[in-house]
Amino acid sequence: MSEKRTEIGELGEFGLIDQLNSKIKIRHQETLKGIGDDAAVLDAGDKVKVITTDLLLEGVHFDLSYAPLHHLGFKAVAVNISDVAAMNAFPKQITVSIALSNRFSVEAVEALYAGINAAAEHYNVDVIGGDTTSSRSGLVISVTAIGEVEKGKEVYRSGAKVNDIICVTGDLGAALIGLQVLEREKEVFMADPNMKPQLDKYSYVTGRQLKPDARMDIIHELKELDVVPTAMMDVSDGLASELFHICKESNVGVMIYEDKLPIDKQTFDTAVEFNLDPITCVLNGGEDYELLFTISQDDFHKLEKHPDIHFIGHVTKADEGKFMVTKSETAVQLKAQGWVHF
Amino acid sequence: MSEKRTEIGELGEFGLIDQLNSKIKIRHQETLKGIGDDAAVLDAGDKVKVITTDLLLEGVHFDLSYAPLHHLGFKAVAVNISDVAAMNAFPKQITVSIALSNRFSVEAVEALYAGINAAAEHYNVDVIGGDTTSSRSGLVISVTAIGEVEKGKEVYRSGAKVNDIICVTGDLGAALIGLQVLEREKEVFMADPNMKPQLDKYSYVTGRQLKPDARMDIIHELKELDVVPTAMMDVSDGLASELFHICKESNVGVMIYEDKLPIDKQTFDTAVEFNLDPITCVLNGGEDYELLFTISQDDFHKLEKHPDIHFIGHVTKADEGKFMVTKSETAVQLKAQGWVHF
Repeated sequence: MSEKRTEIGELGEFGLIDQLNSKIKIRHQETLKGIGDDAAVLDAGDKVKVITTDLLLEGVHFDLSYAPLHHLGFKAVAVNISDVAAMNAFPKQITVSIALSNRFSVEAVEALYAGINAAAEHYNVDVIGGDTTSSRSGLVISVTAIGEVEKGKEVYRSGAKVNDIICVTGDLGAALIGLQVLEREKEVFMADPNMKPQLDKYSYVTGRQLKPDARMDIIHELKELDVVPTAMMDVSDGLASELFHICKESNVGVMIYEDKLPIDKQTFDTAVEFNLDPITCVLNGGEDYELLFTISQDDFHKLEKHPDIHFIGHVTKADEGKFMVTKSETAVQLKAQGWVHF
Repeated sequence: MSEKRTEIGELGEFGLIDQLNSKIKIRHQETLKGIGDDAAVLDAGDKVKVITTDLLLEGVHFDLSYAPLHHLGFKAVAVNISDVAAMNAFPKQITVSIALSNRFSVEAVEALYAGINAAAEHYNVDVIGGDTTSSRSGLVISVTAIGEVEKGKEVYRSGAKVNDIICVTGDLGAALIGLQVLEREKEVFMADPNMKPQLDKYSYVTGRQLKPDARMDIIHELKELDVVPTAMMDVSDGLASELFHICKESNVGVMIYEDKLPIDKQTFDTAVEFNLDPITCVLNGGEDYELLFTISQDDFHKLEKHPDIHFIGHVTKADEGKFMVTKSETAVQLKAQGWVHF
């Protein structure tokens, strides 16, 4: 028996996941897409069903010292709905499993579920199952979301074509800056529990961290405007990291423009206050849950005047690489940073 | 703001779950069944899809001091497949999310996934997604399974009719007894690490605890024999508890016979060794993952000679109650005990 011990850090989270995924076989033709996109895609007659799941742990993905349980319940659902949206699908059902210890009261659990139910109503989904169990330590939340879309209308990461226009919704970097503010106020509070947190002037960025909204509104609008993106994903790990995924899956390159990147004024100002480069926050901040997608130039006129869709660049050939043109008109190579959990 | 704090223990796990579920609304007609059966049922053209999920936590659902990671990976899948089987459906896909700390080596994670992949092969399912993340404490495994069956052939807990025959597969109580053995050997080992665990003569019962098999073989056979049970569920919480669920959902009573209850000899002998009543183990032992189902009397001849299906009683009217006729021909009222996690 081998006693070899390799630390996970030696491979990294992505290295470990790649190694595990390489051993997975697909056996059923109903499985149209397995691992490797925002959600799996299953054949269901004239429709496809999409399935996605997320596991959230206290102390890793959220901190109950500043995340209200109602918001946390909402967010746990929203992050999964965002993955359904990223497939151009419409969410229908979710399952929610919770593990909690007896440090939680019935009222606390009810607040968590009130957030879950508020999200179920907001996104028009049915809570169809789950598991409630005890935990010896922190709170664990596992959500699986199931969505549906007409067959052929589902959008993968792999469909971007040269000259397609790169679009992103909303603004970016706010959730990361919100987290910085919350962490700072927590430290202030830990040092002196009589200090009141100063959060009023940061309400937009903290809201983006604590209660993100999946962009189902955009998916409904794309349908009404008869636009099917060529590739799409949600911005959960950071814009640069997501662009790298699209480049890899679509075998293309990208050219984006710094002056086109959407950033909110409060995000910008707060980044400066924290001595952070706002553009780095936009490129590498995670958890914004906006949509990043590419469209054919033929569809540009349909979206051109949309107030919340920004055209940040275009798709190039793979061998042209991945670049950002800065405000001083220099092309700099993009780096994927994303989040590292281990 | 109310400062009321109600302890979860005041409501109990089932009370809490009932209270949370009472606030859930179903919005989509595609959701044929939400919470309340072994799996949810979704419309999918001429088929239905069934979805079930389980959340397993170290220290609550498993103990790594005696559960080998390979077996644990297999079991995490099998318990979900068992819920698919309980709907009379055929499993097609699973998602697997794992949270683990850096006390696990790459080799340990590979052993866990080898068990997951072995189960995926054994049950002929595709691993289509999941999440791998870090945990600050113990190992967490969340599996969601998706199955499929021709519309109208899915079996709920609610279909049992008066005079139907109650069937159970395999034998019961072994997993509970296996757990007793493993816990005892762990204590011996903790007291003196030089002691070798004495497990050889308990291999059947410990195997039933560590690596249960979902009874997909029975679902395939029922299909071949053209038998659709009137009601079905898997025995995860204990026979008595499951019978109570069927009685409640089908609005019926039951009469079962002690001398018909299947128990393996090693289970019986080991129960006696532990000063436990073997029949109590059969009635209230959890985690056997056998199938409990009811069939119309017209179908009895098709199953009559099956070596691994036992006919333990029949369905009565609800007002006739839930009884077991003992070997001494006394009718005693059944009590549901099941597992309490909080």
